[in-house]
Amino acid sequence: MGILKKIFSNSRSTEDGIFFSKMENILGFKPLNIEYYQKAFTHRSSNKVDKNGDPMNYERLEFLGDAMLGSVIAAHLFNEVPTGDEGYLTKMRSKIVSREHLNELGRDLNLIQFVESKVPVNHFGENIHGNIFEALVGAIFLDKGYAYCEKFIMKRVIIPYVDIPKLEGKVISYKSLLIEWCQKEKKSFHYEVFDDNGNDGQKYFGVKLSIDNKVIAKARATSKKKAEEKASQRAYFVFQEKINTK
Amino acid sequence: MGILKKIFSNSRSTEDGIFFSKMENILGFKPLNIEYYQKAFTHRSSNKVDKNGDPMNYERLEFLGDAMLGSVIAAHLFNEVPTGDEGYLTKMRSKIVSREHLNELGRDLNLIQFVESKVPVNHFGENIHGNIFEALVGAIFLDKGYAYCEKFIMKRVIIPYVDIPKLEGKVISYKSLLIEWCQKEKKSFHYEVFDDNGNDGQKYFGVKLSIDNKVIAKARATSKKKAEEKASQRAYFVFQEKINTK
Repeated sequence: MGILKKIFSNSRSTEDGIFFSKMENILGFKPLNIEYYQKAFTHRSSNKVDKNGDPMNYERLEFLGDAMLGSVIAAHLFNEVPTGDEGYLTKMRSKIVSREHLNELGRDLNLIQFVESKVPVNHFGENIHGNIFEALVGAIFLDKGYAYCEKFIMKRVIIPYVDIPKLEGKVISYKSLLIEWCQKEKKSFHYEVFDDNGNDGQKYFGVKLSIDNKVIAKARATSKKKAEEKASQRAYFVFQEKINTK
Repeated sequence: MGILKKIFSNSRSTEDGIFFSKMENILGFKPLNIEYYQKAFTHRSSNKVDKNGDPMNYERLEFLGDAMLGSVIAAHLFNEVPTGDEGYLTKMRSKIVSREHLNELGRDLNLIQFVESKVPVNHFGENIHGNIFEALVGAIFLDKGYAYCEKFIMKRVIIPYVDIPKLEGKVISYKSLLIEWCQKEKKSFHYEVFDDNGNDGQKYFGVKLSIDNKVIAKARATSKKKAEEKASQRAYFVFQEKINTK
C-alpha cells in the first residue's frame, strides 16, 4: 500500500513536471503557482472543486483573460496608431480579439493537449481553443501580474499575428502581393512545402520561398496556406523598400 | 513687449500650477507628465493638434481608459466574488461601468470644471462626465502605468461605489433597511442635512445621522438623497452584526 502510494505520487509528480516544462516553453517564463495553469485547462465536466468547495474550471479565468487581452491590445493599438481615432481603435481591437482569431491562437499553440475533461476532446466545438487561450491569459495575470500578461500577449499575439496594414484591409494577402511584384519584375518564384511536425502531436507545415532560385524566407504553421502566407509576409518585409518605391 | 510676455507666461504657469495641484488632489499622487491630463480634458471643438499635427483631444484616451476600467474591475470582481461564475461577473461588471454610473463618477469629481472647449459646457449632454472620467483613467495609464490605474480606480470607483450586495439587487436602499431596523428595535433616528460646499464650485450636501440621539455616521455627496444613502450605509456597517443576527 505504502509502495503503491509512492509509485502513484512519483508518477504524479513526473506528470506535473512535464506539464510545468511545457508551460514554461509556451509562456516564456517559469510559472510561480502552477495551480492557476492547471485550472486554466480544467473543463467543467471534470467536476472538480477547490478547497472551499467552489467549482474549479477555466470559465472564470476566461472572463479575466478576456479583460486582460482587451486592455493590453487597446494600449498597443493606442501607441502604434497615433492617428487612429476611437472608432478605428475599437474596430481594430475587435478584429484582433475576435472569436475566430482567438481560436486560431489557441489551436496554433496546441493548448487542447492540456485539457482535462470527462467529455472526449473531439466532442468540443471550435471555441474551446479560444476559451482556453483566454483562460491561460487569466492564469498569467493571477500568477505574475499585468506586466507578464503584456509580455506574453506581445510574444504570442501581437508579434506573430497583429499586422496593422492587413487588419486595415489594405493588404488582403501577402502572397498575392508578392506574386504580383515578382511578375512585374520578371522574377521567378517557388514555394516548397514540406511536413514539419514537432513532438507535440500537432501537424505542422514548413514552407521555403525562393525568388530567382534563392531561398528568401522560411515559415512554419498549422496549415499549408498559413505557412505560405507567413513566408510571403517575411519576404515582403525583405523587399518592402523595393516594392513600395516601384 | 518683454514685460507683457513675462506677465503672460507667469499667469500661464500659475494656471498650470493650479491645474497640477487640483489633479494631484483628485488622483492622490503627483502627475509625472501633466500633458496627458491636459489632453484628457480637451474637447475636439478646441481644434488643437499635437506637434505631429494629430488631433489633440480626449477621444482616444477615452478608448484606453474604458479598456483599463474593464480589466481592473474584472480583476477586482474575480477576487472578491470567488463563487460568481462567468455570467455573474460579466453582469456585475456591466453595472459598474455603465454609462450612467460613469457619468455619476465624473460628475461627483466635478471633472467638467477642467474641460477646455469652444462649445459652452452647458451644451454638452450628460455623457461628457463619463467620457472625461474614462479619459482621465487613460491618462493615468500613460503617465504612471497599470498599478496606478488600479489604485486610482480602487480609490475613486471601487471603495466609494462598488457595493456588491447592492449591485446584486439584494439591497435596494440602505436608508430603508436602516429605518426598518430602527422601527423594529424601537430606536429613534434623525437625518440632519446641511449645505457643505467645497471651494471647487460644486454644490455638496452633508448629512449627520443620529440614532437614539447619538451621531452614528456622517456623509457628504452631490445630492441630499445620495448623502443620506451614504450615511445610512455607513451606519448599516456599524450595526451590521446586530441587524443580521436579528
